[in-house]
Amino acid sequence: MASTTRIEQALMAALAPSESGGCPPKLMAALRYAVFPGGARIRPRLCLAVAMANGDDDPAAASAAAAAIELLHCASLVHDDLPCFDNAETRRGKPSVHRAFGERIAVLTGDALIVTAYQSLAASLAANPGRLAPLMQIASRAVAAPSGICAGQAWECEPLAVLSDYQQAKTGALFAGATMAGAAAAGVADHEQWRALGERLGEAFQVADDILDVAGNAEKIGKPTGQDASLGRPNAARELGLAGAINRLETLVSSAISAIPDCVGANALRAAMLLEMQGLLPVELRRAA
Amino acid sequence: MASTTRIEQALMAALAPSESGGCPPKLMAALRYAVFPGGARIRPRLCLAVAMANGDDDPAAASAAAAAIELLHCASLVHDDLPCFDNAETRRGKPSVHRAFGERIAVLTGDALIVTAYQSLAASLAANPGRLAPLMQIASRAVAAPSGICAGQAWECEPLAVLSDYQQAKTGALFAGATMAGAAAAGVADHEQWRALGERLGEAFQVADDILDVAGNAEKIGKPTGQDASLGRPNAARELGLAGAINRLETLVSSAISAIPDCVGANALRAAMLLEMQGLLPVELRRAA
Repeated sequence: MASTTRIEQALMAALAPSESGGCPPKLMAALRYAVFPGGARIRPRLCLAVAMANGDDDPAAASAAAAAIELLHCASLVHDDLPCFDNAETRRGKPSVHRAFGERIAVLTGDALIVTAYQSLAASLAANPGRLAPLMQIASRAVAAPSGICAGQAWECEPLAVLSDYQQAKTGALFAGATMAGAAAAGVADHEQWRALGERLGEAFQVADDILDVAGNAEKIGKPTGQDASLGRPNAARELGLAGAINRLETLVSSAISAIPDCVGANALRAAMLLEMQGLLPVELRRAA
Repeated sequence: MASTTRIEQALMAALAPSESGGCPPKLMAALRYAVFPGGARIRPRLCLAVAMANGDDDPAAASAAAAAIELLHCASLVHDDLPCFDNAETRRGKPSVHRAFGERIAVLTGDALIVTAYQSLAASLAANPGRLAPLMQIASRAVAAPSGICAGQAWECEPLAVLSDYQQAKTGALFAGATMAGAAAAGVADHEQWRALGERLGEAFQVADDILDVAGNAEKIGKPTGQDASLGRPNAARELGLAGAINRLETLVSSAISAIPDCVGANALRAAMLLEMQGLLPVELRRAA
């Protein structure tokens, strides 16, 4: 089964209990709205790619891990879009959850998506419980304090922040969670060795996002551009120039690929990662190689 | 060790990873502020009481389950107090989290507390993984859609809600989570049979809360009174009168106690629950029996 199909099916399965009857209608609609249709699903694809490179001996575990990472990501988008943060009007090409359903439902949707991520892990790992605790630890560290995506967002509330700490927590943490969860779902005990790949891909993704914010087409990418400048956030393309940022992105992708640990599917994974990263920028922004 | 000590220690252990260094200072302070000092800790006490009545053969599991239930409760309080919901100025006798730290940190604190609840379960159940998935399922159902506390709060956003569904989800769900988690942490496979006790105690607690909102002393209970009337929420003491509500509370407590399933410590549990429920109202509001 193609990775994209596995991911969409695992996400639908994760939301199924919420839709089993008796749910307040707005919350139920908002949960589905926040998850479907998705963006690039880059984090769960990464998670599955790493699981497959390591033999993928429990596909249900890997699919659930990928879905959990994506649900945690969707939850963070819903909360980051709230009026007290970015006050974003649109997300993935449609009104943000709080614009469509109101602020209260948006807060609750984020909360329920976090819980649903763990609930889905528990349901899918019940038959393989030895892998459940490591997966939960990986997902939790990627989101909670001191250095998960909640901490990354919280650095925006501090007068002084080390830029690399902020970016690592805000983006790198969940990418590292995706690669490590993929490995742990496939039974790799030393999943820490998969952290560097995720962190570097996360940094590359951040640079690509910065480039799109400066030079992208808002309609194509489904969210407004120029946000970093208007919200006073750091942006690699403004700091390094467009050519410099594209150069930096390529260096980061090479460095990520060279960090792939030894595993049965290392060659295929290297090729898949290269393709994945090339897809981050539209053709007109890729450097002629 | 006394239950209160076990609970406070388990909560401190659950927050320890967040405080292990590198956390944005405001988020770290807000996490601690939202959890300590606690309120009555009635849900985790209930969880431990049920675990002990069932032999408490893995005290670390029961303590972690109790802490997880309390962390999920604290998260819901932080988010329920937000300006878009109750806009509460105080909680547990001090400024609410968003008043003390700002709205953005309050959103993130709730999110991080939910994740911390699961993280702590994973850490404490790693050596007893067969009990981890059931505990996660119980906690998740108590919080998520379709009928957990998030759903309860979401009923407030609907034009039409069945009052009993609303109250069951908003309060009963986490009480039922507490009793079932206590049983599951102690290895009871059929933890569903512990649901009725939790649901009825939750309903009793709701009635006691309604009585305090109408007739309590704001300073003693640490939050403003008269909130239900000003927020247009249902209140048993306004509907039934004070004496009628006290009567209803007593009926619910009896019914809860009679729902305690057969177990080694059933007698002690009955006595403990009676004492716990008597403590819900100050002496001047208890009926002379």
